[in-house]
Amino acid sequence: MKYVIIGGVAGGASTAARLRRMDEKAEIVIFEKGKYISYANCGLPYYIGDVIKDRNKLFVQTASSFSKRFNIDVRVSTEVTRINVPFKTVTARNCQTGEVYEEDFDKLVLAPGAEPVRPPLPGIELEGIFTLRNVTDTDYIKEYITEHKTQRAVVIGAGFIGLEMAENLHHLGVDIHIVEMGPQILAPLDAPVAALVQQHIRTKGVNLHLNSVVTGFGKSEAGALNVLLKDGESIGCDLVILSIGVRPDTRLAAPAGLQLGITGGILVDEYLHTSEPDIYAVGDAIEFTNPITGKPAITYLAGPANKQGRICANNMVLGDIQKYEGSINTAIVKVFDMTVGAAGVPAKHLEKDGIKHIVSTTHSGSHAGYYPGAQQMSIQITFSPDTGQLLGAQVAGYEGVDKRLDVMSSVIKNKGTLFDLCNFEHAYAPPFSSAKDPVNIAGFVAENILQGRLKVIQGKDLRNVEEECFLLDVRTRAEYESGCIPNAVNIPVDELRDRLKEIPVEKKVILYCQIGLRGYLAQRILVQHDFTNVLNLSGGYYLWKICDDEIHCEHTAVC
Amino acid sequence: MKYVIIGGVAGGASTAARLRRMDEKAEIVIFEKGKYISYANCGLPYYIGDVIKDRNKLFVQTASSFSKRFNIDVRVSTEVTRINVPFKTVTARNCQTGEVYEEDFDKLVLAPGAEPVRPPLPGIELEGIFTLRNVTDTDYIKEYITEHKTQRAVVIGAGFIGLEMAENLHHLGVDIHIVEMGPQILAPLDAPVAALVQQHIRTKGVNLHLNSVVTGFGKSEAGALNVLLKDGESIGCDLVILSIGVRPDTRLAAPAGLQLGITGGILVDEYLHTSEPDIYAVGDAIEFTNPITGKPAITYLAGPANKQGRICANNMVLGDIQKYEGSINTAIVKVFDMTVGAAGVPAKHLEKDGIKHIVSTTHSGSHAGYYPGAQQMSIQITFSPDTGQLLGAQVAGYEGVDKRLDVMSSVIKNKGTLFDLCNFEHAYAPPFSSAKDPVNIAGFVAENILQGRLKVIQGKDLRNVEEECFLLDVRTRAEYESGCIPNAVNIPVDELRDRLKEIPVEKKVILYCQIGLRGYLAQRILVQHDFTNVLNLSGGYYLWKICDDEIHCEHTAVC
Ligand SMILES: Cc1cc2nc3c(=O)[nH]c(=O)nc-3n(C[C@H](O)[C@H](O)[C@H](O)COP(=O)(O)OP(=O)(O)OC[C@H]3O[C@@H](n4cnc5c(N)ncnc54)[C@H](O)[C@@H]3O)c2cc1C
Ligand SMILES: Cc1cc2nc3c(=O)[nH]c(=O)nc-3n(C[C@H](O)[C@H](O)[C@H](O)COP(=O)(O)OP(=O)(O)OC[C@H]3O[C@@H](n4cnc5c(N)ncnc54)[C@H](O)[C@@H]3O)c2cc1C
Ligand SMILES: CC(C)(COP(=O)(O)OP(=O)(O)OC[C@H]1O[C@@H](n2cnc3c(N)ncnc32)[C@H](O)[C@@H]1OP(=O)(O)O)[C@@H](O)C(=O)NCCC(=O)NCCS
Ligand SMILES: CC(C)(COP(=O)(O)OP(=O)(O)OC[C@H]1O[C@@H](n2cnc3c(N)ncnc32)[C@H](O)[C@@H]1OP(=O)(O)O)[C@@H](O)C(=O)NCCC(=O)NCCS
Repeated sequence: MKYVIIGGVAGGASTAARLRRMDEKAEIVIFEKGKYISYANCGLPYYIGDVIKDRNKLFVQTASSFSKRFNIDVRVSTEVTRINVPFKTVTARNCQTGEVYEEDFDKLVLAPGAEPVRPPLPGIELEGIFTLRNVTDTDYIKEYITEHKTQRAVVIGAGFIGLEMAENLHHLGVDIHIVEMGPQILAPLDAPVAALVQQHIRTKGVNLHLNSVVTGFGKSEAGALNVLLKDGESIGCDLVILSIGVRPDTRLAAPAGLQLGITGGILVDEYLHTSEPDIYAVGDAIEFTNPITGKPAITYLAGPANKQGRICANNMVLGDIQKYEGSINTAIVKVFDMTVGAAGVPAKHLEKDGIKHIVSTTHSGSHAGYYPGAQQMSIQITFSPDTGQLLGAQVAGYEGVDKRLDVMSSVIKNKGTLFDLCNFEHAYAPPFSSAKDPVNIAGFVAENILQGRLKVIQGKDLRNVEEECFLLDVRTRAEYESGCIPNAVNIPVDELRDRLKEIPVEKKVILYCQIGLRGYLAQRILVQHDFTNVLNLSGGYYLWKICDDEIHCEHTAVC
Repeated sequence: MKYVIIGGVAGGASTAARLRRMDEKAEIVIFEKGKYISYANCGLPYYIGDVIKDRNKLFVQTASSFSKRFNIDVRVSTEVTRINVPFKTVTARNCQTGEVYEEDFDKLVLAPGAEPVRPPLPGIELEGIFTLRNVTDTDYIKEYITEHKTQRAVVIGAGFIGLEMAENLHHLGVDIHIVEMGPQILAPLDAPVAALVQQHIRTKGVNLHLNSVVTGFGKSEAGALNVLLKDGESIGCDLVILSIGVRPDTRLAAPAGLQLGITGGILVDEYLHTSEPDIYAVGDAIEFTNPITGKPAITYLAGPANKQGRICANNMVLGDIQKYEGSINTAIVKVFDMTVGAAGVPAKHLEKDGIKHIVSTTHSGSHAGYYPGAQQMSIQITFSPDTGQLLGAQVAGYEGVDKRLDVMSSVIKNKGTLFDLCNFEHAYAPPFSSAKDPVNIAGFVAENILQGRLKVIQGKDLRNVEEECFLLDVRTRAEYESGCIPNAVNIPVDELRDRLKEIPVEKKVILYCQIGLRGYLAQRILVQHDFTNVLNLSGGYYLWKICDDEIHCEHTAVC
């Protein structure tokens, strides 16, 4: 059996390694157009930022170590330029010698990854404007920074890689502007969760421009770059990192007649077949069905690429025995001192897809408050009002964010419910959690909502009802006095039972406290004292304030 | 409705708080024989060790704040001395005034916790010998240490609390001996996982005495304590912490005729009823059914106690609507720089209970190796050979142990399988994990075992087969030369395909590498080249060496 694999990194190399373990006798050829296989794409920003100091660490395997260990024919600097489907061959071109030849296959795997979007803006070809995808890009950027003693950089696009680049350049002492077209950073997050991180970025002295469209690039007489914005402003800098997204690389698949999906990825079935039975595809290039929404999806993540590689190898050797369940897009990023991530489907996408859902936000300590070093984290979950199925989770904070996200991801993946969050039995000792884990708390609150014991209102909906309602701040007087929502009246929760008369029974009462807990307690008291229309602000004053601050930032140029 | 609760800490206070939220109008009375309610039992060792500096932080609520917030009648320093089942009353005694009175109830909740075991050894009443269970114990110990300027302590019992006390006393500069009757620390762990932690403890200069039985205590002329051991030795010290375990406090339940289980706990049904319909019980005192083994079990953990309290309140108010699923004993402890924990059932208990299982040990980096600070962690899982159901997991290491344990716990709780570990979609960026998480790797290896693609042998079984087998070390020459298993022959995996002739086909071949991965690769090569009887050492040389070192320590007095 002869297997040919196009692309030698996350998806391709994983497929090859598993193939060899499954079939010692097979012939396996990898084509990789770049100089390197099996490198750590995800480490590239950190190497640029000198956090990873040794360039060799970026290579999990080299072509030579890989072929030695796995007895695989690894052809680097060799681009496949064409798939000849009827003949079961590919056309390859040695990028160094220019030699062009055909290679036949029994089974072919496409793992070409994604290509960065580089829109045809005026000036985009100017020196100093980079995208980052592979080791060669990295070497160029690093060399450029050293040579030009870069002091000011503009990162265009506030996605995961953009933010990592901003942090790493900042780490090198570079002054940073981040320019993002959308109204928030990190598109897979809902706005309130993004706001938490935006506020953090601003504290680092990074200039964050949201709702800001780049129209082109110029060069000043002194040789500095200029990033031109739609509002007429421009930002001078020495370096531009263009990080506005990627798209599946279908430059081989499309001309070969392989079916593409509506998202533009190579369409695969649940066994990772393309539309041609002997051609499989894995990684950033494929379109599969999102297991939560049932809609076509692409995911640009290393974990899924690696796992798909393993499944693809199993299916090729053993004959389509293992289904790929689809990725739920679990992703995470360190942004300066914060960590933020998501799994499943954000509220805004559920809304767009017309999927019924409830949103709940809670804030908890990363570990027991009495043990030193606990830090607050925020969890936003979305769940089905009918079944309680957990549809999505987003977590932002400092310590232990990755842990809670992983647990949520495991529940979402299993089509579990918020009851699984309530029953989740976490490992508790003071340095690691509290007797009720933040995951449990998220579950309890959601359960209360689902069972009608707690009615919540989202901060964004507060503005529309402010007029007709009685807004009640149940925090302590000191908290209230140091900042509150306009027009709120203060009755601390511990005085509430004695001061019920001060609240108009006929009005809708909107309660809030700092994070939501005391508001919930107050709500339980009120509804059991004949107040029929009581809502509690989800995420409390804490989240409201952050979102409010962000709104004010948006209205000033840079904040 | 009038609810009476006995015990005002984890289980009791949680029940009360949830009760109030469910029923604003109910009468709720808490009896607590100690001076404090709602304190952080789990923080006590850290307060003694000055890690928690402010004593007030130990109190999550005080009697006064709790009664204010929840409108609950909290009676501290009041011991319930008797339950009068037919009359639905309890007899209470105010420990300060001596007043004795009856209090009636509609529903009663027992949350008395556990009592520390204090065996009647000669000299046990000597000053300076303490158990640790509550704030009063803590105050005594702390005062004693300060007054006596304690320099040498013996901790008897190497369970979770014993080790926390050892660490915290060590943190105060105290010289520590740990004396443990059993052959290992932390009884819920299997021996190899315990060995990893034992080695770490020894590096801290703590004297660890395993297989060491305390027969009594004496006092020297100079006033120092002496801990007397069965082997005739004795250890001089200023302070003894007796931490040899706890047992359910049934001092009220038993005379009241409530049914006890075979473990000695108060027997409850799945709704947390005792054998009397209007009496419920929660927390350390109860016996429930372990959901994995189906056997009676007790768990001494704060998370379950808190969750049971909430379920109990739900059931009392809404009428037995929520089943308690039983705890899977997920527990964790920080031991100096290490973290170790377990969920589900260890191999040794599965063995004892006659439950078929396979054991697999893997070692992985806590995050991507190329990103600074990654540290190795070890994962041992047990799973069913028939269904692949995950039965137990133990994790030891440094960073990120709690995360992997929580994910495992979530899978075990859901009666998930090792395939859930393979498919687990973790949040990956370099600071948090690798493209394949340690949980995935544990899953892949288990899957390979289950599907017959990998055959493993455990270190403890190696000794029995050494004679008849060909022991093959597939690490590099340098690794081999710096230490190997006696009688092993070295052929590095990358040379294996060319040196197959050096291996006797007729013999059983036992392979090993450092952690198990290269051994697996080598096994895949051999079995596909007509070697029929090939085993790979689970956990590799790394685990073998640690267990071997521990065996040598056991044969010397202290190591
Ligand atoms: C800077 C950066 C940071 C990232 N950080 C993270 C992270 O923190 N977490 C995460 O989950 N994911 C991260 N990712 C994404 C992750 O790296 C990808 O999802 C993953 O590598 C996709 O695997 P793949 O095999 O599909 O594509 P790739 O790993 O990109 O490999 C595709 C390979 O195919 C080769 N190729 C393409 N066409 C041809 C051809 N015609 N002939 C021969 N070779 C060809 C390419 O040269 C390329 O080397 C990051 C990506 C980048 C660029
Ligand atoms: C030092 C220490 C460290 C710990 N660390 C951890 C950890 O890291 N993680 C973890 O999960 N668990 C830990 N635990 C265990 C955890 O604290 C218990 O599992 C949990 O508190 C049990 O809750 P409970 O309500 O059953 O009992 P408790 O919390 O012990 O409360 C029982 C209360 O009932 C009172 N009482 C008993 N009898 C009567 C009576 N007749 N009348 C009136 N009152 C009575 C007692 O005075 C006591 O205050 C630790 C325990 C200790 C002691
Ligand atoms: C590394 C790479 C070449 C794939 O190689 P791989 O051999 O499949 O992956 P690993 O080295 O992690 O080894 C995993 C294998 O070892 C096995 N293994 C791991 N530890 C083991 C142990 N202790 N005992 C036995 N087997 C073990 C696993 O079961 C798995 O084998 P399987 O797939 O046959 O079940 C490929 O993933 C790659 O190129 N990665 C770098 C690129 C990349 O992923 N970039 C994006 C992220 S930065
Ligand atoms: C604290 C204690 C009194 C229980 O009080 P509690 O009110 O149940 O617990 P918490 O303060 O964590 O609050 C949890 C409640 O607030 C709700 N809540 C938390 N955050 C919320 C938010 N943002 N919005 C709305 N509700 C929220 C939860 O849903 C839960 O209510 P529910 O049980 O009705 O669903 C009790 O657990 C205790 O005494 N603990 C200390 C003793 C102990 O546990 N020791 C062992 C460990 S060291």
